[in-house]
Formats: sequence, structure tokens, C-alpha cells
Amino acid sequence: MIDGAATPRIGMIGGGQLARMTHQAAIALGLSLRVLAESPTDGAARVVADVDVGAPDDAAALLRFAKGCDVVTFDHEHVPTAQIQALEQTGVAVRPGSSALVYAQDKLAQRHRLRELGIAVPEFAPVTTVADVTAFGEQFGWPVVLKAVRGGYDGRGVWMLTEPPESLPDVALYVEQRIPLVHELAIQVARRPSGEMRTWPVVETVQSDGICVETVAPAPRLSPALAMDAERLAVQLAESLDVVGCLAVELFEAPGGLVVNELAMRPHNSGHWTIEGAVTSQFEQHLRAVADWPLGETVALAPVTVMANLLGGPHTDLATGLPAALAAVPEAHVHLYGKTARPGRKLGHVTVLGNVVAEARERAHLAVAALRGEG
Amino acid sequence: MIDGAATPRIGMIGGGQLARMTHQAAIALGLSLRVLAESPTDGAARVVADVDVGAPDDAAALLRFAKGCDVVTFDHEHVPTAQIQALEQTGVAVRPGSSALVYAQDKLAQRHRLRELGIAVPEFAPVTTVADVTAFGEQFGWPVVLKAVRGGYDGRGVWMLTEPPESLPDVALYVEQRIPLVHELAIQVARRPSGEMRTWPVVETVQSDGICVETVAPAPRLSPALAMDAERLAVQLAESLDVVGCLAVELFEAPGGLVVNELAMRPHNSGHWTIEGAVTSQFEQHLRAVADWPLGETVALAPVTVMANLLGGPHTDLATGLPAALAAVPEAHVHLYGKTARPGRKLGHVTVLGNVVAEARERAHLAVAALRGEG
Repeated sequence: MIDGAATPRIGMIGGGQLARMTHQAAIALGLSLRVLAESPTDGAARVVADVDVGAPDDAAALLRFAKGCDVVTFDHEHVPTAQIQALEQTGVAVRPGSSALVYAQDKLAQRHRLRELGIAVPEFAPVTTVADVTAFGEQFGWPVVLKAVRGGYDGRGVWMLTEPPESLPDVALYVEQRIPLVHELAIQVARRPSGEMRTWPVVETVQSDGICVETVAPAPRLSPALAMDAERLAVQLAESLDVVGCLAVELFEAPGGLVVNELAMRPHNSGHWTIEGAVTSQFEQHLRAVADWPLGETVALAPVTVMANLLGGPHTDLATGLPAALAAVPEAHVHLYGKTARPGRKLGHVTVLGNVVAEARERAHLAVAALRGEG
Repeated sequence: MIDGAATPRIGMIGGGQLARMTHQAAIALGLSLRVLAESPTDGAARVVADVDVGAPDDAAALLRFAKGCDVVTFDHEHVPTAQIQALEQTGVAVRPGSSALVYAQDKLAQRHRLRELGIAVPEFAPVTTVADVTAFGEQFGWPVVLKAVRGGYDGRGVWMLTEPPESLPDVALYVEQRIPLVHELAIQVARRPSGEMRTWPVVETVQSDGICVETVAPAPRLSPALAMDAERLAVQLAESLDVVGCLAVELFEAPGGLVVNELAMRPHNSGHWTIEGAVTSQFEQHLRAVADWPLGETVALAPVTVMANLLGGPHTDLATGLPAALAAVPEAHVHLYGKTARPGRKLGHVTVLGNVVAEARERAHLAVAALRGEG
């Protein structure tokens, strides 16, 4: 029975902002999220009642944590695949499962699997030497993109090469063609174990130094035909990979059509706009999907929803920046992640609903500038 | 500085659903609410990281709690006025202050104060004997409403009398005229210490046995002139009583105009629709007001927002009722309060946004019926 005992007990491995925002959604559903945080000062650990502290690669901590949960899910991709398999062997429901999650963890395995599925990906090849990279560049043309097979995110683990490098970083690597892109897009879909799926509208993402700094929903410059392609792609991927929970598909809109860039199997920065901008947020939907409950309606509530990330700047002091932003943009939805400000650090985001793209972007940027102390 | 240390530290006395939903709003603002709950199984205590356990009339517990807070506010009216004054003397900012809050705690003092302010209230008189009640009924006509001066809510402490009673309950009492009402309404306003105020649209409330079971926002059958009267009244009251935080004014729409029924100085059931239905929710606004931060935009997002309360029924089992409701009404926003189901107990609420009042009401009722196990 769902009551104080909060059944099913859903545990999330990782205590960052995704767990923090998932907890907000869990409260509405009568649940209390259980979180495995690396530190009691993690963003989620500061606000969640039921926190366990342990590293995401500490086998004993993972097993202890999972024991108290009915379902285990993730706020990041950093749990080694073998350890996820060990959790699965204890009988706890791990959603998404290791056999799906590996395609969000291992980018090279993802590339191979997507090619098998007939889905457009850039030309790619595993590389171990400078000579391998040079040969790839000479065959497919420079620049090329060198990527770490595992562990990269927010621009880390990705190197743009216009010519052969002098040396290679000491991690497993692959190289791929740089796609001449028109826009960057993202689409999200949620899927239950029973197969029910719901997609949200496609968003356009704006990147800076490999970090998503802004999304505009629905993608304002996308043709209806490509929007349908994106939806079909997301549904095909979720089904083929047997994803449970949210799947975010980052896409390049290239001159020849859509090309898959990255996959994430959890709530994702490109879906933060859904908290206020869609009937059901990605955080609530992720919980509903992993609990195997019916999924919620995903339509957008406004003609345009802009989400802008707040990265720390040299003058950021949220004690003055927050009231300044609230005063400057009374219609802004401000989300802070409970982190100490540091230049470049993702500290929060702002969402603005509106009728006109340029206006909503301007209002969101105004709020972010005020938060950064640059108002 | 606002960071992990979550400054200002806002403490809420009372660990019920209002504190639970305030915590959701606090998370977005980068805060972690501190809660004084009566029991660790209270709805808010189950989900909040920073919980202190103590009774709201235990002077030592209140002082200990307040010591760790920059601002103290309330999820209910049950803290004795003298104890609130004792907290104020320690230097902690208590918002709303005791001199305002007394008018939400002591209904007879409220009646006197409103009459002084020239605001329409029913005829009333304090009573200590059956003869007093009889004399009032003979002067102003039966039926009359007998009310406890303090401590009544959700229909408790209110008795409708069609004739002189045989005896009186052993609490401080007053009696008032029964207003022949057209509709019941509520309006909310938030006010900062600096005086900034924002009102939300007036809602129509539907009562059953003295409990609010439904709200429709904006009030669909209200004339624009009366809507403006309600707004003026709310602003006048917040200012005259020096309220800080949210003020809910329950109103009777009588043939001669608006009459004030009850006041609450906290987030209120009649404002739950604002979570999804307005740009800024009452919970976020209450925090912004008591922190003395600029207030948020309050316009409604949809032509109609219906909020329906979930009261436990004889067959309520949320473990089956929740998935049934999610399946039946995928656009419903379900809020559960973490309570064990019992007949008549307020277990949660459902909000539906729409374009047509009758349709939105029907969808909200469908979701509530499914939650109650009557789908």
C-alpha cells in the first residue's frame, strides 16, 4: 500500500540536480525518493529525507543501497556495467537495465548498435594510435571528432581535431566525422517495462563549448517532416534498446536529415523545460515509467518554452543574484541546484513560457544575467 | 551567500501537506525548508531533509527550532499567540507576525477588526450561554452559525443551529448570522515586509460538510466588478493587518455583495490550483514573501483550472488507485500527501487545466474517483 511507507521505494544512484528535481516530482506522487549521493552536500542530499552516502563505483555501497529499494534508477551514467549487473542479480528491478544502459555509457558500442539498426550516425572508427586518427582523417576528411568511449559529458571527453594530433589521451577512444550541422536538436521519450511510450515535442538546443546552454521548445525552425522523423527515431531506439524510463536523443540536423549524436537514459538537461512547459515533466514521467505506472500527457502548454542554463560567472553571488533575477523577470521559473557558485559550474536553470521565441529567449537571458551578477 | 548552506534558512512550524508542498517550491529556489513536525511520519517529515520533531505548543521545542532559522513561518494556526510572541522576542523574524496572525487564529478578534475596518462581515456576537444564542437568533433570525473562537477548521468548530441549542460546547464561542449565499469564493494575496503585493485570480470554492472539496479558477460565475471588489478587499486586508506571506480570504458572494468568511495567513487549500495553474504557485510566493524577495507573476495559465480534493473513501487503496487515476486521466496533476488512507481524511488533490469548466471538472472528478477506488 502506498502510504507513509512510500511504496514502491524508488532509489536513484547519484545525488546531483537530476535527483534533486526528481525528488520534487516524487513528492507529488506520494513517494519519497531514496538517493545514493557521493557526499551529504550533493544537491539532492541537501533536500531529500532518505539519503545514503556512497560512491557510484563502490560495489558494497551499491548493494546496500539497492537492498532497501524496490526499483533502482540513475541520475548519471557512471556506475560500471558489471556493478549494475551485480545489482540485477540480487533481484532488485534496475531500470533502465544494464543491457540498455550500456548504450548510454559506451559511445562506441552505441555507434555499432545504431548502425546495426540502420539509424544514421556519422562515420566512425575505434582508434588506439595517432596513425589511426590520421588514416581516418585522410579517408573521411578533416576536421574529425575524437571522443572518449566512456565517461565524457558536457564537452569533456570530446576533442575537435583539424589535423593529426601530436599524441592521444590515455583512455579508450574512437574518432568520427564532424557533421556539417544546420541545428542541434533533442527529443525525449519515456517508456514503461510494459512498452507504453510517450514522446515530448522536439527541442532545439544551443551549445557553447560542448555544454547545452539553452533549449527552445518546440524546435522553432524544424520542418514537420523532420519532427516526425525525430519522433519515430526516439520510439524506435527506446524499443530496440529496451529502454525503461526516459531516453534523451541528442540529434544533429544535417543537410541530409537527422543524425544521432548522443543518448542518455535518464532525465536530461534538454528536458528541463518540461517542468513548467509540458503537462507532465520528464522527472515525473521517469518515475512513472520506472514504477511501471501509466505515463502522463506530454503536450506543450505554451507556444514557446525557453530553458536557459545558469553557469557560474566571475561575479556570481546568488544571495544578491536571485532577488535581482526575481525582480527583473517576475514570470521566470528559477531552479537552483544547491551548489556553491564557481565560474563555469552549472548552478541552475531558468524557464520562461511565452508566445514569441525572441521575446522568451530575451526574458530568460535577462534572468540568467541577473543571477550571474551581470544584470 | 546562498549555497549548500541554504541561506536564508526558512523554518515552517507544522509538518503537514502545506509544508510538504512548500518544500517542493523551496528546492527550486535553492533552499531546503526546515520543518518542525509533530511526528516523523507527518507528510512533510517524510520528504524533507531537515526535520525537527516537536509539538506546536511546546515552548522549548519552538525556541530550539527557531534558533536555527533566519525566518519562521507556519503551516497551520495552532501555535499559541503568547508563544509566537516569545519567538519574536528572541529576534528571529516571524512572518506573519503574531499581531497579524492573531486575526487568523481568533475568529472573534477578526470579526471585531474587520468591522472596525469597515469590511462587510455577518452580524456577530460573543456568547457564553444558551440564552445568549437564543437572544441573537431572535434578534437576527434563525438559522445562526455557532463558532469556536479558536481552533476550528475543515468544518470542525462550526455548528449550524436552526433553533436554540440544548447546551453549548465548552470552548470560547461566538455566534453569527447565516449569510444567504450565492456562491463561495476565495482570493489569495501575497505580501512582502516591504509592502509589495500580488493577488491571484478569484476562485469559486465548492464546500461539502464544511470542507473545501473543489476550486474552479478563475471563478466562472463572478462578475468583473465583484472580482475587483475581492481583489481590493484582499489588498486592504493584507495591508491593514500587516500580513507577511500568503493571505487567503474566504468569501461569501451574498445578494448584497461580498462578505468575509474566514482568513488564513499561509498557503491554503483554495490556492493549490496555483501550482500548475498560475505562473507562480502560492508555495513559492509564500517563500518569496517571507524571505522578502520580489514576488512572482500570478496570472492563470489556462482558461480554467480545476482543483479537486481527494478525501479517503471506504475502498481507497492508493497502491491501486494511483495507477488507475494516472491511466484514466493522463493530463491530471496528482498530488499525494504521504498519508495512510482513512475515510474522510484529506489524502491529496488533483488539478486539471482546460478550456471548458464542465469538462475540466469532469476530468478532475474522474481522477479523484479512480484514486478513491470508485473508478
